[in-house]
Amino acid sequence: MSPTSLAVIGLGAIGGSVAWQARRAGIKTVVGFSPETADLNAAFEAGALTATAPNPEAAAGGAEFTVIAAPPAATLELLDRLAPLIPAGAVITDVASVKVPVVARALKAGLAGRFAGGHPLAGTHASGWGAARADRFRDCVVYVTPTGQLPGDAAAQAVVRFWSEVMQARPVLMTAEAHDRQLAWTSHLPQAVAYALASTLAARGLEPDAFGPGARGTTRLAASQPDLWVEIFLQNRDAVLAALDAAVGDLAALRDAVARGDEAGLRTLFTTAQRFRESLDA
Amino acid sequence: MSPTSLAVIGLGAIGGSVAWQARRAGIKTVVGFSPETADLNAAFEAGALTATAPNPEAAAGGAEFTVIAAPPAATLELLDRLAPLIPAGAVITDVASVKVPVVARALKAGLAGRFAGGHPLAGTHASGWGAARADRFRDCVVYVTPTGQLPGDAAAQAVVRFWSEVMQARPVLMTAEAHDRQLAWTSHLPQAVAYALASTLAARGLEPDAFGPGARGTTRLAASQPDLWVEIFLQNRDAVLAALDAAVGDLAALRDAVARGDEAGLRTLFTTAQRFRESLDA
Repeated sequence: MSPTSLAVIGLGAIGGSVAWQARRAGIKTVVGFSPETADLNAAFEAGALTATAPNPEAAAGGAEFTVIAAPPAATLELLDRLAPLIPAGAVITDVASVKVPVVARALKAGLAGRFAGGHPLAGTHASGWGAARADRFRDCVVYVTPTGQLPGDAAAQAVVRFWSEVMQARPVLMTAEAHDRQLAWTSHLPQAVAYALASTLAARGLEPDAFGPGARGTTRLAASQPDLWVEIFLQNRDAVLAALDAAVGDLAALRDAVARGDEAGLRTLFTTAQRFRESLDA
Repeated sequence: MSPTSLAVIGLGAIGGSVAWQARRAGIKTVVGFSPETADLNAAFEAGALTATAPNPEAAAGGAEFTVIAAPPAATLELLDRLAPLIPAGAVITDVASVKVPVVARALKAGLAGRFAGGHPLAGTHASGWGAARADRFRDCVVYVTPTGQLPGDAAAQAVVRFWSEVMQARPVLMTAEAHDRQLAWTSHLPQAVAYALASTLAARGLEPDAFGPGARGTTRLAASQPDLWVEIFLQNRDAVLAALDAAVGDLAALRDAVARGDEAGLRTLFTTAQRFRESLDA
């Protein structure tokens, strides 16, 4: 059963897409709130919302299902604020990229049984309502992290159904701890590498014309919002550090192989990398 | 004046695109050779060639303009083999990503006045005729490196005209030394970073489904041909090492900022990176 009323707090690339697809999927009432008034109005005008709310409480109050689509620190604060407004039988979830602090805060706010975390693997460097797409989550993996043991309670099952049936995505249940360890490698590390490479290149002062499609693709993530990523890296610090240590080591090893003219060593490294990358498109 | 006869040695993503666009632009005779018989036949069947040749000499002999579209080491060898077949007034060029060794070999082969180097900034991780596109070079920057001083001799001017008038690209004259120093940063470093990141991720053994669009884009270059890149890195070793040293240092600095929880330092680094990346799309 899909919810008949949905609240979406935050109407950027993720929240805007959630609201829009919910309307397309026939959810009767979709109430939105965004601190960005332009995003809120644009989402309403596009038909992604049936009503706008003046604050998060007004949006979530009375909704069967609430999605917090905000950066990690704001998500924690919103869980505290909205917890008293979520009645038994209603469900609240989020979309933050780090799940251990979110699940811990939900438990502390007394939301056990009414909350499960969510994280759609549909990131984009773009932000704001302008990056919302009704089909953003189609066939996209979405991690769902229960507050307790796997496979989770009725709230987790409701979040799974929402992503599967309403958003047309592919939910995957995982503990918050396993999620954060895995995402440190699959998402946070590529983000860090893109930031570091872009800062290295920025220091050279070359003209934009000097960069071809390869450099542009490799650094594209660096266009993402700095504040969001400072939060993510610090909330998942230990796991991100482990991934960064491995990456610094591997880049230094490549550097040393170039320095000593180690053709065979470079070929082995590049072939391993090529096989991995080709496996992602297989 | 465009040449009326063209020879293209190598019919992969770059050579195949050169031949195809040359025919579309109305060059009367386009003779091709490829050591990959399947590529050669497919290029002919697609109408990118007016004739196939059984070897490089048969393709270049009699052509007004010859393009060597081969990996760096093969390019050096082909310059030696083809030099005796290029009459005064004819021109030979190449597309290799490293230009100092190529220009030096052309001079040694006695090709001064008949050769200038070329390098279209239209790289793709894909290879072979299947990656050829007649419009691959449209509006694309192409570096042209004369054998002597800038702006170069008649051969360099002919290579500039070829890329501009026939390929619809944007040629930029540059010395081979300046080219190789610059490309170490703009192209070879992103390639190295993509290889290193992909090898780090490969070692985790995660399922392809675990990687979202960000990780895929950041590692896309790692799908490139290992042999080609071993050659490029070793032929441009000193400049590549300088770039790699800077990148290892910047990634380690990011790691250290995460380790000490330095919010302000991370925000500054990410903002610099974001501004740089946004400037590429401005």
